[in-house]
Parts: sequence; structure tokens; C-alpha cells
Amino acid sequence: MNFTIHHKAAGSKARAGVIETAHGAIQTPIFMPVGTAGTVKSLHREFLLNDINAEIILGNTYHLYLRPGNEVMRAAGGIHAFANWDRPVLTDSGGYQVYSLTDARKMKEEGVTFQSHVDGSKHLFTPENVMDTQRIIGADFIMAFDECTPYPCDYEYAKKSMHMTHRWLDRCVARFSETEPLYGYEQTLVPIVQGSTYPDLRRQSAEYIASKNAPANAIGGLSVGEPAEEMYSMTEEVNAILPEDKPRYLMGVGTPANILESIDRGIDMFDCVMPTRNGRNGMLFTENGIINIRNKAWAMDFSPLDRLSPEYSKAYVRHLFVTGEMLGAVVASLHNLRFYLWLVREARTQILAGTFPAWKEKMVKAVSTRITG
Amino acid sequence: MNFTIHHKAAGSKARAGVIETAHGAIQTPIFMPVGTAGTVKSLHREFLLNDINAEIILGNTYHLYLRPGNEVMRAAGGIHAFANWDRPVLTDSGGYQVYSLTDARKMKEEGVTFQSHVDGSKHLFTPENVMDTQRIIGADFIMAFDECTPYPCDYEYAKKSMHMTHRWLDRCVARFSETEPLYGYEQTLVPIVQGSTYPDLRRQSAEYIASKNAPANAIGGLSVGEPAEEMYSMTEEVNAILPEDKPRYLMGVGTPANILESIDRGIDMFDCVMPTRNGRNGMLFTENGIINIRNKAWAMDFSPLDRLSPEYSKAYVRHLFVTGEMLGAVVASLHNLRFYLWLVREARTQILAGTFPAWKEKMVKAVSTRITG
Repeated sequence: MNFTIHHKAAGSKARAGVIETAHGAIQTPIFMPVGTAGTVKSLHREFLLNDINAEIILGNTYHLYLRPGNEVMRAAGGIHAFANWDRPVLTDSGGYQVYSLTDARKMKEEGVTFQSHVDGSKHLFTPENVMDTQRIIGADFIMAFDECTPYPCDYEYAKKSMHMTHRWLDRCVARFSETEPLYGYEQTLVPIVQGSTYPDLRRQSAEYIASKNAPANAIGGLSVGEPAEEMYSMTEEVNAILPEDKPRYLMGVGTPANILESIDRGIDMFDCVMPTRNGRNGMLFTENGIINIRNKAWAMDFSPLDRLSPEYSKAYVRHLFVTGEMLGAVVASLHNLRFYLWLVREARTQILAGTFPAWKEKMVKAVSTRITG
Repeated sequence: MNFTIHHKAAGSKARAGVIETAHGAIQTPIFMPVGTAGTVKSLHREFLLNDINAEIILGNTYHLYLRPGNEVMRAAGGIHAFANWDRPVLTDSGGYQVYSLTDARKMKEEGVTFQSHVDGSKHLFTPENVMDTQRIIGADFIMAFDECTPYPCDYEYAKKSMHMTHRWLDRCVARFSETEPLYGYEQTLVPIVQGSTYPDLRRQSAEYIASKNAPANAIGGLSVGEPAEEMYSMTEEVNAILPEDKPRYLMGVGTPANILESIDRGIDMFDCVMPTRNGRNGMLFTENGIINIRNKAWAMDFSPLDRLSPEYSKAYVRHLFVTGEMLGAVVASLHNLRFYLWLVREARTQILAGTFPAWKEKMVKAVSTRITG
């Protein structure tokens, strides 16, 4: 994996770059559509490839480990072959999903035991076996196994957890180093900064992660309920320490405004279920703000859904949602991902043109507006 | 509307033709994907236009009348504008849906009162207001309001019902004649033969319908549970009487074998929910037979789903169904419609080549096989 920075914005920490992987190049900043179980919900690959033009998608180790399971994944030859997706893939480590199973997991130094949400069966994730599973899935970027602390989180817990995440990282690195990719192409292990919302812990964690000299670095444990300002200030603390010449990935973020503010603070990679999950509930993101397409206000509005989605009218898409038609989820997911990808690409254009800060200010306001029709 | 027959198959009643409408030409025999509420379930127009290449789709008056309702439909400028579909559309009259609401409808000479499945509200469909609603929907082909009798149906009821359907047809024709299309293009009213499974009633009804000299004719009340042989013999009775130079539409049919046998008996147009509905349940139709993609047998089968759908493997599509992923429904619906459209197009090719009867014999057997992996 290689990362080249083409341009740094004046008056901002924003950067435009390119990441080269065994499955092709990724222009940064980039948004990665979430393909939980090896599918970006409701979207045919035709749309991902030729419409949204997704440059990288994300898979969830927890979900893929449970279904189809490692045996099928290994026999398929990994996620690229299984899902017929020959562009880059990143898999999370399962840490976040396991952390979400609040009542069905037990954390200890060895790892986490948890009960499957599918059938209640018991499983153990350790730094070592999560590396093994991610070797089997075969993503281009694989995430270290960490504990994602909740918000709020008391200082002592956050500190203890951070140190465990660091020890787990060392075990991940050891296992990763002593194993080989299974399918003949390079995989990159990405360590994760934790430390909750405590600046000193975040700095300490960033120092530790930076010391590993990994080809890319991630920030976890944010976008878990804290105020956006806390997320931004933690990102600033961490980015002041993480190496500038490596891609930085802010996990699970976020709204369009969150993404723009984080690009401004030097983040290069994002993922979030929001465009697809909120889309399935009828929330549409546009450059002029947010539309709840279920609202009665759109019943007789025959204008195009949006500049990026001119093929159906607001009234028609509302009709799809009101009648519970599956196409509503498809159209809204497609639109929101078109918008998210447009947003990061436009950010890149503005960075390269030297106009990012002013554009960002304007856009953050616009995308946060509620359009009521 | 114009219908030209290009070729009649030797040793068969099958014909290859073309129907010209205000929204373009339809090569026959044709299968019409069902777009109940103005959307072929789960399928983006991109697929309908450029992949399946649907030449005409079907809408349901009952569903469109309830939602979005006539006010929205009128304001949109009809179904073509509302759904952004500029190819031909056929709407059924609502008779079949109302007949399905067994416990929530009352039939009388005037029409049918029924309760909406959406909110329980009461409505009255009459031959006249169903014509008005179909003027508002603006389909190219609009169906007469009829009673679809159940199977089995006693002779006296079938006879009485058939006569009422005939009287309703006269009222449809009268209302249709005294009203104009609302959007500047021609609509064609299609009368429907009834008579249950009684040859004498079917002949009587066919004579009555033929006497109306409509530009196209339909056969209703079949594919409601009767043995396939009954359906075929009723179709033969009716087609011996319906004019040869007009398109014949066999409503709600059916399996791939049903379609081939009916083409062989001189049917030109078909519609059925089977490819989409059964697809959503994991049943895939192929030229080699039927696949239940949920079966464990496919878990490690990484071969393409089918010749017509090479973009995903059987194992992957099974995974989508097992995990309840929406893309499973999309892929299966897309595949089944690709197959249904392939089937009628290949039938047309075989008719034109003079090889239809032998090909049909072979194909009827093949498509009815169960492929167990």
C-alpha cells in the first residue's frame, strides 16, 4: 500500500491524496459505503461500480464470520471473489459489533466471548483469531482488534481499556507478522487510537499507535454519542500526533457536516451506515439539506428527487415509502451514496483548487438544513 | 394501436407479431412484468430499461387508486409521468384484486363495494368509475371491469357472473366511448372473456367479446387454481373464436411451461407476479429448471447463478437470502425477469425460424425440472 499526498489545503489540515492498493487506487478524502455482510444493503454491484463509483467498500468481520462463515469464505477465495468485487475492501475487526452486544458479551484480557445475534451460539474473538479471520476474508485493509468505549465513559475505565487495546494491538501485529496473505495480494493492518473523550488519553494512545509506524492509522471510539465538538477536538489532538504522511481513517463518521469538519482536521477515510440506514427510513441527504421524503409535503411535488437523482420525482419516491415498496430503500440508498461520494470528491476538488475552507464553511451550513418542502 | 402478425408457426397456433402503441412497439409474444403500485418490486428503472429491457409493464388499478390515489395521479399527468416510464403500460381493472378481498367486498349489479386493505375505508368500483380511474392512470391498455370467478365455481354461478361481466363490458364500452384520453395519446380498452372452466360458457363469452371488435382481447378467470390442462383447453376453446388478427392476452399466467403452452395455443401477451414474488422467496427460473437458492446445496457452489445472471455466484446469492439481505430479492427478481423475457423472445425467434413446436416440447420439460444441486 502506498499513500501520496497531492495537495494540502491552505488554512486547513485537509489533504487530497491517493492510496494505492492491490485492488486499485483510492482518491482521498474518501467515503467507504458499508457492506456489512458483503453487500451494501439493497444495491446491485452495477450501481456501486458504474453509478456511485465506490472506490472501496467496508465489510464487517463479525457479520462475515457468522455468515457465511470462514469455511465458505475460504473456499470462495475471500471477499473479493465471494462478492465479485475487485476493488479495495476494508474490514473492521468486529470490536465495534461485539461492543454493541452489551448484554451478550464478556471482555477479558484474552479477548471477548459473545453470543451470536443469529442463533445465540457462543464465540470467542481474540486479537489472534480476528487476524486469522481477516486473513480469510482477505480485505485490503484489516483493522486491529480493539475495545470501543461507550460515551460517556469514566476516566479510569477509558484508561484501562485503552491500555488493553494497546496490548491487543501488539498481539494483532505479532499474529499479522507471522501469517501470510492467503490469496496472493498484500493486506495492510491498521491500528486504532482509543482514549474516549479524554485529551491526555487520546494523545497517549496516538503516540502509541504512531510508534507502530503502520502504513495507515485509524481513530476509533468516536461518533458513539458524544457532542460533535468533542469528536472534532479529539480528532485534532490525535491528528497532531499521527504521522502526516499516512492515511487517517475516522471510524463510523458520520453526517455530511461531520465529514467536512473532519476532512478539515486532516482525516482521509470515512465509513458510516447513515446514508444507507437513514436512506431506508426515508431520510435523504442533499447539498441543500436533509429531506424526510415520507412527509406529506412531497405528495404532489413532481420535481426530481435531487440534482444527483433526477430519475424519479419526490412524489414518486414518497409513494414508494408510503406503500412500503422496496424500491424506495433502493432509490434512497443509491441517492445518499451518490451524495456522500459527491461530497468527498467535491471536497477533494476544492482542496486541489485551494478553495476548501470557504467552501466547507458554506457547505456545512447547507447540508445541515432541514428542507420541509 | 396496431397489431401486425409477422409469422405463424407451422404445426402450432403460435404467432410472432408487433403491437404498436403511442409509447412504442411491443414484439409479441411478450411477458409484462407486474408493477403493482407503479413499481416492479425492488427493480430500479435502469434494470427495466437497459437490462431486462421490458417492452411493457403492468399496473394495478386497485392499488394505484388507493395509493397514490387519483388526485396525485391526475396532477402527475398519469402513470408514465408519475413513474418516469415512457414505454407502454397496461392496467388491470381492479376486478381481480377486489375478487381477492373475499371477506371485504359485496358484489351487485351496479358494481362492487369493498374495504381498502390499507385503512379499511369503503369504496365502490363500477364499470364507469373504473374507466374514469384508468383514464386518470393513463395506461396504453386498460382492462374492462369484470368478475373473476374462483375455481372451482358451480355452473349456475359461472353463467350468471359471465352475463354480468358482459353487461359490465357494455357499460365500460359506453363510458370509454364518451370520454377522452386525458394526456393526448390513445388508450385501448381490452374486453375480457370469462366463463370459468365450462367450454360452452367460454365459447359463449368469446363470441360476445369477439362481437365487440376490440383492438385486443383478453382471457380472464384462468390460472386461479384449476389444473393446467383445463387452462389449456379453455384457451383453445376461446382462441378458436377470438379474432386471429388481434392480440390475445391471457391474464395472470404463469409458469414458464404455462407460457410456452399458451403461446403454442395462440396467446400473445402474458403477465404474472411469479418471477418477482417467487424470486423474493428464493425461487429462480432457468432454462434448465427451477432452483431454490436457499438450499444448503448451494452454500459452497461458487459457479455463476445462471448463464443469464453471471454477476453473482449461487453461494453468494444463497448468503444474501440466508442473511435476509434485500439484495437477494433484487438479484432474484432481476434474474427471473431476465429469464421470462428471454423465454418469450426465444419463443419469438423459434416461431420466426419455423422451429417452435420442437423447441417448445423440449423446453417445457426443461423448465419444469427441479435442480437440486
